[in-house]
Amino acid sequence: MMTAQEYEESLRRLHLVVYMFGKKVGNVVDDPIIRPSMKAVAKTYELAHRPEHEAIMTATSHITGKKINRFTHIHQSVEDLVKKSKMGRLLGRETGCCFQRCVGMDALNALSIVTFNIDAKHGTEYHKRFLNYLESVQENDLTCDGAMTDPKGDRGLPPHKQADPDVFLHVVEERKDGIVVRGAKAHQTGAVNSHEIIVMPTIAMRGEDRDYAVSFAMPSDAEGIIYVLGRQSCDTRKLEGATIDTGNFLYGGHEALVIFDNVFVPWDRVFMHGEYDFSGQLVEDFAAYHRQSYACKVGVGDVLIGAAQTAAEYNGVASASHIRDKIVEMNQLNETLYCGCVACASEGRKEPSGTYNVDVLLANVHKQNVTRFPYEIARLAQDIAGGLMVTMPSNEDLKSPETGKWLEKYLRACSGIPTEHRMRILRLIENITLGTAAVGYLTESMHGAGSPQAQRIMISRRVNLEEKQRAAKKLCGIQDN
Amino acid sequence: MMTAQEYEESLRRLHLVVYMFGKKVGNVVDDPIIRPSMKAVAKTYELAHRPEHEAIMTATSHITGKKINRFTHIHQSVEDLVKKSKMGRLLGRETGCCFQRCVGMDALNALSIVTFNIDAKHGTEYHKRFLNYLESVQENDLTCDGAMTDPKGDRGLPPHKQADPDVFLHVVEERKDGIVVRGAKAHQTGAVNSHEIIVMPTIAMRGEDRDYAVSFAMPSDAEGIIYVLGRQSCDTRKLEGATIDTGNFLYGGHEALVIFDNVFVPWDRVFMHGEYDFSGQLVEDFAAYHRQSYACKVGVGDVLIGAAQTAAEYNGVASASHIRDKIVEMNQLNETLYCGCVACASEGRKEPSGTYNVDVLLANVHKQNVTRFPYEIARLAQDIAGGLMVTMPSNEDLKSPETGKWLEKYLRACSGIPTEHRMRILRLIENITLGTAAVGYLTESMHGAGSPQAQRIMISRRVNLEEKQRAAKKLCGIQDN
Amino acid sequence: MMTAQEYEESLRRLHLVVYMFGKKVGNVVDDPIIRPSMKAVAKTYELAHRPEHEAIMTATSHITGKKINRFTHIHQSVEDLVKKSKMGRLLGRETGCCFQRCVGMDALNALSIVTFNIDAKHGTEYHKRFLNYLESVQENDLTCDGAMTDPKGDRGLPPHKQADPDVFLHVVEERKDGIVVRGAKAHQTGAVNSHEIIVMPTIAMRGEDRDYAVSFAMPSDAEGIIYVLGRQSCDTRKLEGATIDTGNFLYGGHEALVIFDNVFVPWDRVFMHGEYDFSGQLVEDFAAYHRQSYACKVGVGDVLIGAAQTAAEYNGVASASHIRDKIVEMNQLNETLYCGCVACASEGRKEPSGTYNVDVLLANVHKQNVTRFPYEIARLAQDIAGGLMVTMPSNEDLKSPETGKWLEKYLRACSGIPTEHRMRILRLIENITLGTAAVGYLTESMHGAGSPQAQRIMISRRVNLEEKQRAAKKLCGIQDN
Amino acid sequence: MMTAQEYEESLRRLHLVVYMFGKKVGNVVDDPIIRPSMKAVAKTYELAHRPEHEAIMTATSHITGKKINRFTHIHQSVEDLVKKSKMGRLLGRETGCCFQRCVGMDALNALSIVTFNIDAKHGTEYHKRFLNYLESVQENDLTCDGAMTDPKGDRGLPPHKQADPDVFLHVVEERKDGIVVRGAKAHQTGAVNSHEIIVMPTIAMRGEDRDYAVSFAMPSDAEGIIYVLGRQSCDTRKLEGATIDTGNFLYGGHEALVIFDNVFVPWDRVFMHGEYDFSGQLVEDFAAYHRQSYACKVGVGDVLIGAAQTAAEYNGVASASHIRDKIVEMNQLNETLYCGCVACASEGRKEPSGTYNVDVLLANVHKQNVTRFPYEIARLAQDIAGGLMVTMPSNEDLKSPETGKWLEKYLRACSGIPTEHRMRILRLIENITLGTAAVGYLTESMHGAGSPQAQRIMISRRVNLEEKQRAAKKLCGIQDN
Repeated sequence: MMTAQEYEESLRRLHLVVYMFGKKVGNVVDDPIIRPSMKAVAKTYELAHRPEHEAIMTATSHITGKKINRFTHIHQSVEDLVKKSKMGRLLGRETGCCFQRCVGMDALNALSIVTFNIDAKHGTEYHKRFLNYLESVQENDLTCDGAMTDPKGDRGLPPHKQADPDVFLHVVEERKDGIVVRGAKAHQTGAVNSHEIIVMPTIAMRGEDRDYAVSFAMPSDAEGIIYVLGRQSCDTRKLEGATIDTGNFLYGGHEALVIFDNVFVPWDRVFMHGEYDFSGQLVEDFAAYHRQSYACKVGVGDVLIGAAQTAAEYNGVASASHIRDKIVEMNQLNETLYCGCVACASEGRKEPSGTYNVDVLLANVHKQNVTRFPYEIARLAQDIAGGLMVTMPSNEDLKSPETGKWLEKYLRACSGIPTEHRMRILRLIENITLGTAAVGYLTESMHGAGSPQAQRIMISRRVNLEEKQRAAKKLCGIQDN
Repeated sequence: MMTAQEYEESLRRLHLVVYMFGKKVGNVVDDPIIRPSMKAVAKTYELAHRPEHEAIMTATSHITGKKINRFTHIHQSVEDLVKKSKMGRLLGRETGCCFQRCVGMDALNALSIVTFNIDAKHGTEYHKRFLNYLESVQENDLTCDGAMTDPKGDRGLPPHKQADPDVFLHVVEERKDGIVVRGAKAHQTGAVNSHEIIVMPTIAMRGEDRDYAVSFAMPSDAEGIIYVLGRQSCDTRKLEGATIDTGNFLYGGHEALVIFDNVFVPWDRVFMHGEYDFSGQLVEDFAAYHRQSYACKVGVGDVLIGAAQTAAEYNGVASASHIRDKIVEMNQLNETLYCGCVACASEGRKEPSGTYNVDVLLANVHKQNVTRFPYEIARLAQDIAGGLMVTMPSNEDLKSPETGKWLEKYLRACSGIPTEHRMRILRLIENITLGTAAVGYLTESMHGAGSPQAQRIMISRRVNLEEKQRAAKKLCGIQDN
Repeated sequence: MMTAQEYEESLRRLHLVVYMFGKKVGNVVDDPIIRPSMKAVAKTYELAHRPEHEAIMTATSHITGKKINRFTHIHQSVEDLVKKSKMGRLLGRETGCCFQRCVGMDALNALSIVTFNIDAKHGTEYHKRFLNYLESVQENDLTCDGAMTDPKGDRGLPPHKQADPDVFLHVVEERKDGIVVRGAKAHQTGAVNSHEIIVMPTIAMRGEDRDYAVSFAMPSDAEGIIYVLGRQSCDTRKLEGATIDTGNFLYGGHEALVIFDNVFVPWDRVFMHGEYDFSGQLVEDFAAYHRQSYACKVGVGDVLIGAAQTAAEYNGVASASHIRDKIVEMNQLNETLYCGCVACASEGRKEPSGTYNVDVLLANVHKQNVTRFPYEIARLAQDIAGGLMVTMPSNEDLKSPETGKWLEKYLRACSGIPTEHRMRILRLIENITLGTAAVGYLTESMHGAGSPQAQRIMISRRVNLEEKQRAAKKLCGIQDN
Repeated sequence: MMTAQEYEESLRRLHLVVYMFGKKVGNVVDDPIIRPSMKAVAKTYELAHRPEHEAIMTATSHITGKKINRFTHIHQSVEDLVKKSKMGRLLGRETGCCFQRCVGMDALNALSIVTFNIDAKHGTEYHKRFLNYLESVQENDLTCDGAMTDPKGDRGLPPHKQADPDVFLHVVEERKDGIVVRGAKAHQTGAVNSHEIIVMPTIAMRGEDRDYAVSFAMPSDAEGIIYVLGRQSCDTRKLEGATIDTGNFLYGGHEALVIFDNVFVPWDRVFMHGEYDFSGQLVEDFAAYHRQSYACKVGVGDVLIGAAQTAAEYNGVASASHIRDKIVEMNQLNETLYCGCVACASEGRKEPSGTYNVDVLLANVHKQNVTRFPYEIARLAQDIAGGLMVTMPSNEDLKSPETGKWLEKYLRACSGIPTEHRMRILRLIENITLGTAAVGYLTESMHGAGSPQAQRIMISRRVNLEEKQRAAKKLCGIQDN
């Protein structure tokens, strides 16, 4: 397993083509806007070496029997699934943001199921290829980006009917030694902090979309892969060189638009190629795993609750009954989310490949709650924080000889607490509810791993309405013929 | 294990003193208002003999190694705890009401922990006594009522300061062969369908309340025990002899005020006597188990969802997008409840006695959701049902030669569905949202196993705010001294 | 204006054909189940004679210039509309139930607009006829039932395509002196307490449905009109002869299925006959007025809040911060409803006929909130009431020499408050949240004046999305061509 | 009445001492961060000259009889109050942000009531002074900042017991010609766009706090007044010189900490000086008016709904039933807010001074909803917008020759819509839900005009619980002695 330091060094060896604000980024690792997101991924390496977190952060490879980082592990039991949820909460709490590495873990696990199933039906050899690839990921402790979401163009049309055929990623050429692909993947979390990018189709498909039913993995700096960073609320505060105003001065996340401009993929890295009949299953399995992964928001919720409680103490109102009740409510919502990611794991089941999958219905139910509760937790945090959170002068005003004295005098917190501490904790709440981390805690909670309606469709498919109707009819004496 | 038939026969041998509508009930088992509640308990016996439910409904006694009904079992593993939640949902779905038997199971499990702990501290022999008692409960497959809630009088005063000392049940005399107790327990679910009544104190106590720190079990027909049945919304529809208007024509629940008018309890049935320092723990453990038990409401929710879907089909609107969305929402809420009762079980832990206890924080979080979501599920069911649910004429109008023709003509359901079926399913929804079953599905969900504020207090005690604050401070750069 | 006593006497002179529980009701006015609903209507007569309510309860007829009961008035100003909302709240608070008389007022006002508009387009003389009719209603201070909702049969088909042509009320014969109609109206609130029944079509129609586009008024005891009473939750408690267990021992509501079995209507009572192009407008105007009328639920909410506060005092917990907060929340929701019914009145506008109409958008928004907030207010009331509300023995148990002493001892309220008072207030909360009044406060709030989806459709039609989009585009610099 | 242009020029003549990012701002009017907020205030001048808005934007002075900008008007009727709410919505829709000028209007109106009342009790001459001052405000069409919120220090202590006496603004010296004051006011909306600053006390006070019971008005650039600008989420995007990424490229808001460093106030500008017994009333009246002023958020809600609808159209999903339902829900919430601000105006009453005041209970109920619904509207807007809102590359990426082509290709909107338009509308939604405007639409909605708990306290004081209890008791037959 790599250390955090080794991880950072490994990234320096990559030759990524990254654009931000219209310009190519020369040094990705040290870029002040990107670096906090790299540090968040690095935390997944760091904690794996800490004895107190070993049970959760590491696992035993079912291929090699070696101890590996859990992020590269294929779940072998219900216990593994539950530990994954706990790992998500732990890292969310430690980083206060999106630590980006779960998407690759979820892609690996989904492929471990589906490559096996494709082979069983079509007599192909994807699973063996996949296991070879997986072994190298585990051995080298790589961070993978799992890339699913295509731009999609006109949402009413299937891939092959789109005006621009590239709005869904597809095979444009088949060669003896591999395939050439073109297209793009949007919203790629942690893309430029990854060693590998694992591509999957984004919807269920039919025969006419055969060329779009493609899955493969490539090094993140392969020729033809281009990254354009998305911008976040308050992103440029990181350029100000100040620690207070960023709120979370250590960690962050990022998303990128990833373009595949005629990328060549050798056969041993291709895990699906034309088996459109498994496209839907791959989407569904990845989505279920990834919906479980929103366990991380419980950890970010922990940070926000801790920040709100601290702000209340600094404001001198922590013992007011309405404040205490709001803290209880924040916990109630946050722990309800925790119940969701634990339950879908606890109710997990073994797939033919031997991989354990979460309960798909409950994973969707969990994610649906994630599209709601963090918004209410954030609202309550803003309630407790007070208006100063958004009317507070800048870090530079605090440091300035002309204005610093006024801030020290008039923004003074409860006795004994430095004004700066009060400003710091309020900036953290701002960060999670309005700033860079709000992108992850709120909007990504809404749309990541599928927008709310996607979960509702899955829920309507997965609940057993007939069983419920039978029970109801029996109790009121309706006998169907 | 008894069969349902044997259970019913066993109740006939009891000599209970039961009052209802101001009069003594001669034949409890066949009383039309009480009988459906007895039938619901009987279901816990019936299903234990069905092969398809054996894994969930039965367990292996850790005392005798024999197969026993799970309702008499002491949880020996996390798996046992999870199965308890599934059993609750199963029976809720099969009966559409409160099947009453969980409260005794929860009392037994709480006592298995606390008698052990009392002995460890005080060198008493309660645990051995308890195991003897438990063995006979298991061998005879008894239904126990777990009785905790005292009338409480002035809520601002401890037991020993009350104007009437009996508003908390207490020891009024200590004899060589046992104790004499006086007081009452309110809201006793299923009391007159029970063979045994297990009494526990209702709050944490101090030394001055020593006489109130008492726990014991007695046969339900012991001398001095008097039952006064509570009345429920629509209770007397059961007297009308019609099946349609009761909604659920098979099952129901009941609650009773149980009076202990100087009841003698022999020593071998006393499990706590003066150890006030364990009173709080017994309350807390029982409450946690019993809050988990609200898994049953997920099963009743299944019935209500099934009924709503059926009503929508009969109304000819099942495919309308807003109806489908409301069905999804009902499921979303119902499955979120399921996540809660599964998660608090899955996160359970072993107590010194060997008993597995649920995660207390999550059990409280689960119950808190139960005080909310069933109300919203019920609201949505009423939305889907349509106003006819409350403006529909009676069963007798449907059967009457004068009015039946008009109902057949004008209350006609979707093609092919008899008008009577439509009326039946609407009456079932009425039953669960306004009628006898609403008592269990709504108001008992609110107050059973502790009112909402009780859970909020436990949540505020059990969450680790310091850990959350440490995480928040670290991320925004606050270093406490 | 009639007195309450005169109103009751006037009902005795009617020869209504009413069925309940499959039998014909001999004496409607004194029937114990129906009588409380009659008393609620009588309250609208009684209060009109009280000086302190005169400004709200009475108005000046725009036809005769005489003082009339506001329930027979055509709104002549915004002030009239606002007073209508206040009158609804007042009567809701005084009766704690549905007082039934608003539906006729709303029908009269809608007809005052639409008959005028029909005449303007078609050169007919409906408005004059209507004014003649109205004058007699005002002079005789009549209670009218406004009857709109047909059974509707298959909801996917228009009236003329239904298998049974009568599932929408329609003209079956045209005679020289009038028309003959057949069909039914469902959910008719207060039907058997009315002197008149005013029929309107239930949906917008096209030319093929010409025979269904019919509106008229008939005496409630006209030949061929048959009433079948709907049953309500806990209806038969009124037969028990006890005052406690009914909760609200004075008032109630009722609904009936009204059948028109070939009823002859003379021309001077016909207000629409074939003008299908105005059918939609009549529905919409009536619906808007009637959605405003849900002002009454604010008054019932007042009663429920008052009952909850009283229960909290009797339970000795009124000063607990969480109880106080719940009382605030109940008020917050209730007053938000009040804002809705005031605002749609305050924003009212004059129609060509001179009648003032409410703001249709806001009336729909108001009613939509009514489908939600009373449920939450009821949930909070049950929270505050405590579980005793549904586990409490009967009135007869309290009066019985055998059990009364136990109830007095163990259900004792806070010091100085008789046990019976505690039981009474809890029964009132039960009445409004589960019993007969829950039919009006909850389910009727959901479906009366149109189910929630009906309001959503109107809202989507009435909001000016284009204006909002123009504003948004301007601010972000989008220039459309 | 000034034009927008004249207003801007008038600001250039001020000599304000403003700090931002630790430095003094040389040219306030043209500062790129401040200027959009000035432009929003300017809109209040511009619209007053537009004939279509004249009825709402202007009024007739009750002092001079001249036409004046409504923002300087004292409400003379219920109609005035209703127009104020409409003006707020109009300007919120036109600017999409906080236009800042209502706070001064509310201060003027509150003072018009309270100065009159003080004089009546104490025989002072504040009201005359105030009217003189008001006349000059009206004549010169000035923008006033109403300044209430002190830093407050230890919230458990009254002003005179604070460790630092200046944490509440107070009189430090009384001279023949006036008074000298010291302290600060926090969260001052639009402070540096104002000609005048009107100071009021922030809490009810007792005799010991006499020196803190002070109200006065001063020119915003009076000696000793210092402004430190608060920073907002995404504030520095305005420095990027790009129009797309700011979302709302025209308008914004700002808040400032205003320090009074020994400011001399001449007697003719003092409106309260030591009359602590009226401090509470001034707070309450100002608060009620200002809670009504949150009518503006309905207008911002209009913009957000318009933006969401446009985004849905650009995404090609506007006709999906779940999207349409979410748009309805956004409108439902937004119009419910509108009902609140209309109803509290419509129910307004005349004060002894002749000024019309809003209904205080309903104004508080309205504001309480404002602390909730905008958050849910924002959540729904983010749901509809899609994840691209937060993962979209920057304006510079769109313009760059290297990356622009990729964005054009892969972020393409629905056919015919330029990619740039899609980005613009998403940036506007980001602006209102996470960016600079979220400060106003969300956090200011929470805390402006008093935090939620302040409204709950007022609601509990203003509802007539006794009346509700009397009604409840009567209905269930409880007769109190």
